[in-house]
Amino acid sequence: MDAVAQTVLRISRRADICLVTGGLGPTKDDITARACAKALNKPLVLNQQAHASMQAYFDRRGFALTVDNEKQAWLPRSADVLVNDHGTAPGFCFLLHQCWFFCMPGVPSEMKQMMETQVVPLIQKTFSLKPSLYIRRLTVFGLHESKVGSLLDGFDDRFPGIRLGFRASFPTIEVKLVYDAARADDIDGKSMAASIAGDGETIDRDSDSMDTGSSNPDTINTPINEPKTYLAGAGQWVEDQLKNKVVSVTGLSLEAEVGRLLTRRGQTLSVAESCTGGLISHLITEVPGSSAYLLLSAVTYANTAKTKILNVNPNTLETHGAVHETTALEMAAGARQVSGSDWAVSTTGIAGPGGGPTQKIVGTVCIGLAGPGVATSQTHTFRFDDRSKNKKMFAAMALETLRRHLAEKNGEQG
Amino acid sequence: MDAVAQTVLRISRRADICLVTGGLGPTKDDITARACAKALNKPLVLNQQAHASMQAYFDRRGFALTVDNEKQAWLPRSADVLVNDHGTAPGFCFLLHQCWFFCMPGVPSEMKQMMETQVVPLIQKTFSLKPSLYIRRLTVFGLHESKVGSLLDGFDDRFPGIRLGFRASFPTIEVKLVYDAARADDIDGKSMAASIAGDGETIDRDSDSMDTGSSNPDTINTPINEPKTYLAGAGQWVEDQLKNKVVSVTGLSLEAEVGRLLTRRGQTLSVAESCTGGLISHLITEVPGSSAYLLLSAVTYANTAKTKILNVNPNTLETHGAVHETTALEMAAGARQVSGSDWAVSTTGIAGPGGGPTQKIVGTVCIGLAGPGVATSQTHTFRFDDRSKNKKMFAAMALETLRRHLAEKNGEQG
Repeated sequence: MDAVAQTVLRISRRADICLVTGGLGPTKDDITARACAKALNKPLVLNQQAHASMQAYFDRRGFALTVDNEKQAWLPRSADVLVNDHGTAPGFCFLLHQCWFFCMPGVPSEMKQMMETQVVPLIQKTFSLKPSLYIRRLTVFGLHESKVGSLLDGFDDRFPGIRLGFRASFPTIEVKLVYDAARADDIDGKSMAASIAGDGETIDRDSDSMDTGSSNPDTINTPINEPKTYLAGAGQWVEDQLKNKVVSVTGLSLEAEVGRLLTRRGQTLSVAESCTGGLISHLITEVPGSSAYLLLSAVTYANTAKTKILNVNPNTLETHGAVHETTALEMAAGARQVSGSDWAVSTTGIAGPGGGPTQKIVGTVCIGLAGPGVATSQTHTFRFDDRSKNKKMFAAMALETLRRHLAEKNGEQG
Repeated sequence: MDAVAQTVLRISRRADICLVTGGLGPTKDDITARACAKALNKPLVLNQQAHASMQAYFDRRGFALTVDNEKQAWLPRSADVLVNDHGTAPGFCFLLHQCWFFCMPGVPSEMKQMMETQVVPLIQKTFSLKPSLYIRRLTVFGLHESKVGSLLDGFDDRFPGIRLGFRASFPTIEVKLVYDAARADDIDGKSMAASIAGDGETIDRDSDSMDTGSSNPDTINTPINEPKTYLAGAGQWVEDQLKNKVVSVTGLSLEAEVGRLLTRRGQTLSVAESCTGGLISHLITEVPGSSAYLLLSAVTYANTAKTKILNVNPNTLETHGAVHETTALEMAAGARQVSGSDWAVSTTGIAGPGGGPTQKIVGTVCIGLAGPGVATSQTHTFRFDDRSKNKKMFAAMALETLRRHLAEKNGEQG
């Protein structure tokens, strides 16, 4: 408790904005409100607005508000409420010394919602900031992060002022282009950047002998009149370098892009999964509206399930085993036939950690695809030591195989 | 870059240990090594040990080590390597002023591995700590976090010295009991706790007028001779309060506990999923060895898939619709029959955001269960606004329905 309160005090003298997450729940180890009250030297009071919003949340869900939950509406006096429409814990904000504190729930979905709908607008208003960030995301699959980086060498010289970022969200990589118009245009840009970098004069109590002269190398001299066009050009250049490894130019996930393409074509899909164990189907059904195109996913772990449900030929299994391109092909064809879907994709392989009775190599997957005029099957080998990673990679590879066929021009006439 | 380097310097004068994650990748925005080198005022050098371990990692996976990846082996001179067996980025550690810095990859799986196998042992060795933490985890499903908290009221008085923590990992809650023998026994316990709390004398430059007299309320006066027994008793008490809401007394996930029970009984399982879209199957197959008991999961999104594959009676669908207890029951019975499994569990419901053609309420799920002498079906309603949350809750509810039957004494005879 003291550690949190002291940290709040310390930060209040150093920063302009502090984002706090977590510790707003109803249990005893949730002490953010109490610790902030201590730092503020104010008592906790039952905040009527917070209480009312919690009451409304519980009413909507048909639950009674318990005494334990009521604890969550006790906030430091003088704090303002940040309403939480997606959970029980209200957030709150307050000013201490020079710093605005925004306390948000730790549950990621609730935090993101509050950040976007309330905290960012409050910060923009309080600090008189106009929205100045232009962002473009591309989803990349099939390249190592290092390879993506080297293929985009020269970006900084070509597109000054645009920051290039990479985020690996296994097994895809998000390439993020950020153009900050305020940095480029505003006279305030430099001082804000300096303040963030920690070398402003208000916070030099810990000053070190470090050279901070070149702390703002991103500032460019030529203001850009059309940030969106500028960013679109940069996005196009990235796409030209990475070619068909770009899964989506709008940052969609592989499964959402597959869904978009199927919807545009008015076509349907079925899935036959062995080693991916339902993951492909789970990913596809995370996308709202997927019930319009997904007819069936048969997770046929056992060989008898493969023969009975997908009509895989028992001779194929006997001759080649479950992990084989012919088996994958028959699984896809069987799923397509039994469900009546336009397309079917299948996986059979070894996710590990065990190698199965035939001791095939962990990380091997055969992917089958059946569609209008299409019947193919391919073997891929990855070398992850991790069952969960292999499942993810196999599922992405299957979705990517399908995506490429759906994206093809001649596939359009299919 | 300057911001990171300055922060490293600032921390080096305040803390004894600093855990750093991320920024070790091969791309341009990965600057942790360079920033640390700047803070250390040392050049980056190609670290032979790091290079060799990366080479070995790439060799194992059959890839060539690229120039871009080589960048990752350039570490601050005098830094020690933390070998990464689960990815390309080597970690490193160094001493600056009073503080040990441990720089680890940001990829969660790689970081966890490095933390457990290398960083924790290094910290224990460097600070002459003997392992003193005794931890017990219980998995809870079916109670609000606030309810769990209130049911465990009085724990602190009953079991002094054991810290009670809650971690919501939707839709289950982990209850964690931590007993720190060093805190309880060691004379050093108090000073270390004080140093972590930030009120020790080495770090009082930011000292505030706050009362820190009672900063270590957890320290207890009576040393415990048998921490394991003490903790087991506390775990038993928690179980007694939460009763059958405790899914696992060893912290297993619902799906792992179901797998454990099936394995113990030597029985098999099939799944018939509609609204959960493959998530149940995905969760079950995340558990290594699940291929021994999972025979089939049929994700029958379309009605025709339900009738063709699971032999659901078309009249049932016409009379009651897809989201109905009778449909759920027939799905489970069909999956059990077609796969020949001992048990089958099914889901059909509305995950949202749309309500489907019949405008049934989003959040409704019917769960069917078929097994030796068992054929039941129940409707549950949740009120989440979120498709993904509903899928998770439905899947957990189905697994829990199965778990309770598997755990029952008379179920053992089946």
